[in-house]
Amino acid sequence: VTAGVSVGVLGASGYAGAEVLRICAGHPGLEVAHAGGDKNAGAPVSALYPHLAQAYPDLVFEPEIPAGLDLVFLALPHGLSGQLIADLDAGVVIDLAADFRHDESFAYGLVELFRDEIAVATRVAVPGCYVTAAVLAMAPLLKEELAEPEGIVVDAYSGVTGAGSEPKAGTMFASVAESMTAYGLLDHRHTPEMESALTRHVGRPVELLFTPHLAPANRGILATCYLRPTGGESTEDLLGFMASHYKAEPFVEVSERIPVTKNTLGSNSVHLTVRRDPRTGWIIVISALDNLVKGAAGQAVQCANLVLGLEETTGLTTTGVYP
Amino acid sequence: VTAGVSVGVLGASGYAGAEVLRICAGHPGLEVAHAGGDKNAGAPVSALYPHLAQAYPDLVFEPEIPAGLDLVFLALPHGLSGQLIADLDAGVVIDLAADFRHDESFAYGLVELFRDEIAVATRVAVPGCYVTAAVLAMAPLLKEELAEPEGIVVDAYSGVTGAGSEPKAGTMFASVAESMTAYGLLDHRHTPEMESALTRHVGRPVELLFTPHLAPANRGILATCYLRPTGGESTEDLLGFMASHYKAEPFVEVSERIPVTKNTLGSNSVHLTVRRDPRTGWIIVISALDNLVKGAAGQAVQCANLVLGLEETTGLTTTGVYP
Amino acid sequence: VTAGVSVGVLGASGYAGAEVLRICAGHPGLEVAHAGGDKNAGAPVSALYPHLAQAYPDLVFEPEIPAGLDLVFLALPHGLSGQLIADLDAGVVIDLAADFRHDESFAYGLVELFRDEIAVATRVAVPGCYVTAAVLAMAPLLKEELAEPEGIVVDAYSGVTGAGSEPKAGTMFASVAESMTAYGLLDHRHTPEMESALTRHVGRPVELLFTPHLAPANRGILATCYLRPTGGESTEDLLGFMASHYKAEPFVEVSERIPVTKNTLGSNSVHLTVRRDPRTGWIIVISALDNLVKGAAGQAVQCANLVLGLEETTGLTTTGVYP
Amino acid sequence: VTAGVSVGVLGASGYAGAEVLRICAGHPGLEVAHAGGDKNAGAPVSALYPHLAQAYPDLVFEPEIPAGLDLVFLALPHGLSGQLIADLDAGVVIDLAADFRHDESFAYGLVELFRDEIAVATRVAVPGCYVTAAVLAMAPLLKEELAEPEGIVVDAYSGVTGAGSEPKAGTMFASVAESMTAYGLLDHRHTPEMESALTRHVGRPVELLFTPHLAPANRGILATCYLRPTGGESTEDLLGFMASHYKAEPFVEVSERIPVTKNTLGSNSVHLTVRRDPRTGWIIVISALDNLVKGAAGQAVQCANLVLGLEETTGLTTTGVYP
Repeated sequence: VTAGVSVGVLGASGYAGAEVLRICAGHPGLEVAHAGGDKNAGAPVSALYPHLAQAYPDLVFEPEIPAGLDLVFLALPHGLSGQLIADLDAGVVIDLAADFRHDESFAYGLVELFRDEIAVATRVAVPGCYVTAAVLAMAPLLKEELAEPEGIVVDAYSGVTGAGSEPKAGTMFASVAESMTAYGLLDHRHTPEMESALTRHVGRPVELLFTPHLAPANRGILATCYLRPTGGESTEDLLGFMASHYKAEPFVEVSERIPVTKNTLGSNSVHLTVRRDPRTGWIIVISALDNLVKGAAGQAVQCANLVLGLEETTGLTTTGVYP
Repeated sequence: VTAGVSVGVLGASGYAGAEVLRICAGHPGLEVAHAGGDKNAGAPVSALYPHLAQAYPDLVFEPEIPAGLDLVFLALPHGLSGQLIADLDAGVVIDLAADFRHDESFAYGLVELFRDEIAVATRVAVPGCYVTAAVLAMAPLLKEELAEPEGIVVDAYSGVTGAGSEPKAGTMFASVAESMTAYGLLDHRHTPEMESALTRHVGRPVELLFTPHLAPANRGILATCYLRPTGGESTEDLLGFMASHYKAEPFVEVSERIPVTKNTLGSNSVHLTVRRDPRTGWIIVISALDNLVKGAAGQAVQCANLVLGLEETTGLTTTGVYP
Repeated sequence: VTAGVSVGVLGASGYAGAEVLRICAGHPGLEVAHAGGDKNAGAPVSALYPHLAQAYPDLVFEPEIPAGLDLVFLALPHGLSGQLIADLDAGVVIDLAADFRHDESFAYGLVELFRDEIAVATRVAVPGCYVTAAVLAMAPLLKEELAEPEGIVVDAYSGVTGAGSEPKAGTMFASVAESMTAYGLLDHRHTPEMESALTRHVGRPVELLFTPHLAPANRGILATCYLRPTGGESTEDLLGFMASHYKAEPFVEVSERIPVTKNTLGSNSVHLTVRRDPRTGWIIVISALDNLVKGAAGQAVQCANLVLGLEETTGLTTTGVYP
Repeated sequence: VTAGVSVGVLGASGYAGAEVLRICAGHPGLEVAHAGGDKNAGAPVSALYPHLAQAYPDLVFEPEIPAGLDLVFLALPHGLSGQLIADLDAGVVIDLAADFRHDESFAYGLVELFRDEIAVATRVAVPGCYVTAAVLAMAPLLKEELAEPEGIVVDAYSGVTGAGSEPKAGTMFASVAESMTAYGLLDHRHTPEMESALTRHVGRPVELLFTPHLAPANRGILATCYLRPTGGESTEDLLGFMASHYKAEPFVEVSERIPVTKNTLGSNSVHLTVRRDPRTGWIIVISALDNLVKGAAGQAVQCANLVLGLEETTGLTTTGVYP
């Protein structure tokens, strides 16, 4: 595999699709040949996204997908990938939506857990942003049986871009700025995805309650996960275990420092810490990531690198844009 | 008791003290005669707080507390109230700091739980902002034994004014904007205060794990509380119980709507909702309030109204400044 | 005129209309009898605006305007007031839209300039938010011929609520947060309104260039106005002149302090300062206000108070909610 | 010159210094060998800046500057560069402070205007952020004598990082969020720097009034510049002239689109537009950039690339992190 892999991005007018374009602009091995966007068909990408104007001066949103692309990223609203997959003529397909996350013909694109499967796949379904944050936080503890697979609470806050680019009352500046709230109580679609990814990885049923919240920020997910311990490991033990477990991972940072979403802005990294409360017994794991990068487009490119046989970190950074 | 109660505000240069001044400006029965502020002594209040310039054109920060004030609000950093209380010559003292919250010579100023004690007191210690949010959310369920007094998780986010007005690296705009993080893991000072207030009200030991977080907002606390149920009450049952319990309270709003901190901005109200997850069993109670009003200055004025025999709602509003 | 004036608010589902409701909730002489809102007809006001839930527990958006209201506030999108005015049966009409701002059958509701006309009117057209900020900043200097009526530049920034409550791509959190931009270059509709209000007040043609900008804030307008001087007045002279000119105005604060929009949040005040640059000659006047209060709903209530013969400041505050 | 240029960053604990580190982390030809930071001496860079933890796992703030570095970036508070320059043993010095901006032994690092001088220099003084925004906006028009060199108004807003990393009352989140204000009226230090850079480039005296403002954003400068025309060029003429003038510049984007600071976040680009108001005659030029990149660290690296004979764009991007 060499530079010159021809890439199509469907749903390029959405935030995740635009983020795929941004990352591809700095990626030496991927060359964007097509930007799909029905509603904006015919308009230059730069008109909707001036931050991409210099990288893609001539790219125009097109309604028709050309045949024979080497790689297609699907960044469409949930439900659309499933409709067009049958007609899609592309060597590699990386889907960012939920459509194929439970489909066995797709590898599940959570690289740190399923790297080997992804590397040999040509179809990958990238997990959701909350799922990536929560599963990377808890998987090692559950796999190693240091925490109970039941009674888990995942309390997480997301920046607004997680809600998509379609104008809605709930995502207007005046609704969000200076505000905090919860949503999707009890039945958020990411709950079964978290449980199923963990269950599959751990090998026994994992049950949890997930409460998503909205914070007045563009990007970022902070997941605070509460688990019951199985044994007597201290904070020090758990920090050592997690650091050791993720030592070789280029995009996971384990530290005693409490993660701060802002440090991950624009980077593909997850920042993690863990504590054991000696008083109440609870284990707390906290993770932070950029929902559009490690939670979407960056993870998709990480998967693409694996599938294409490129260095896994190509075109991705661990360095956030701070402050 | 009539209009013309002379009021001193110590620590008026801090956010909570300035908020007491703001509320007093619209209160027909309280007349500010003294604004204390050592560091700013000699400066007009309007120089530090131009939003108060028209309400208090001639008020100046003074280092010395005059004798004989009818009422003093103490809005000082924790630890200072205890040092000066012995020399304080004032009919009524309302302390916003932690110094006397565990002192039996002070009534505990969480009005909805301890109204009768406050009404006959002349010394009141107002609870912390997180404590008010969490305790009002959980007290009815625990008192009625609808939830277990152990295994509780309180996951809460606060706006930045909760960290005080002293410039610090962690409260700069560039540290906070576009960011989410946790702090005070395991040992935040509000944890024992929550437990002790609940234990005292409920009559049996309550144990919980509290995790405070910082959100990029000026004001607001959103507390998401997780409790194990004792019985089989549904969401509908719990909403009915909470609504009925708080029906007569002027500053508690129970609704099926998920609370949003922004709706409480500048108001003295707490917004509450509750859910029962039929799948995992957890009860979730969510509360929202303005940390500087119901979480500090507004609650202090509510206590003062009770002590002075005024209508409890005088000078306070239930209407947030939205959006 | 007494308490019990029955009030209708048309367009109550928009931000300005909701702000009229908020102010009326604390106004002892106005009683809201009707909230109009076609799109939300049948829904409780509290469902759309939970910050008003306790103030108006039973108020429902209604499509039909009842006859015989004492006072109607029109907070409709521009163009609609003109369509329904003929059929409107109400003693007093205060319009917040642009429809009648150039209509001689309406008083122009910029109180500080046209108080006497408003006091005897029953129809008032309240000026736009930018116009209020810029005109109050410049009118005294132009009237007194201290500045040239030509070559003026008004460079102003507004918070997002000025763009209305309808979801649009440009007012989403992700479009606005962390961003600054200009809009409406050269031909913003407020330009002729500024010129005409100033021309009428000053008595000779005033010409200016106005550039509106969008800032990542909910509320607030900061207008920085540049004028050429006619004479040699210094900063000190100009500050003295402005302070003296506005001395009796309850809602104008002149100070050497540079205005900060945040200090006016929720208040009906305008904060002003002025400078003379000895080097380039320019006079700079800076004004700050809350676009939904002094820039819309508060000014409307101020006009209503005048029309009804109430104290002009009734139900309004000069104290911002800071920080 | 090859990869392996050893780099020292003095003042690496400040925002501009940290941004130099961030950019160097992705630069193939610069290798950071030293991070200076007196106050934080001995602490790991990752402790203060976790966003750099993976890029520089072992880098520690050091008080002493090693001898023999190939290149030193000075990102110190104004005044310190001047003190240490005599003792500085480094092949190339790029200063981000004001100390040498008027010193003839330093090239003035505004690349688009003084590229040839920079390319042959070993000492470069990088201009301030406001200066870069305003000068790039106006220089072509003034040089070509399309606009008068007097009577100019520059009205600009900056994000908060421009005020530095030292905690101050005015840069706290609670002071800035939801707020707009002006500062440095009449005498901001960037005024003479703008005038002198323009005067030198244009070859005749340029005089302007500059008013800086603070916006609630982390990064970004939006400069709105008002000039009097010399002739009758229309908006179309001026857009064509500017586009043509900057056509070959990799980091200047001229468009009819109104610049938006957010589109430049993390990129080294300046976005520009221009208008001619047919009514009042004014020419308006608007520019947007990231104050820490094109306004500081990015421009410094752009200069370093020139001095070192590297491709000018190495390690820099034109693609903003949006949204």
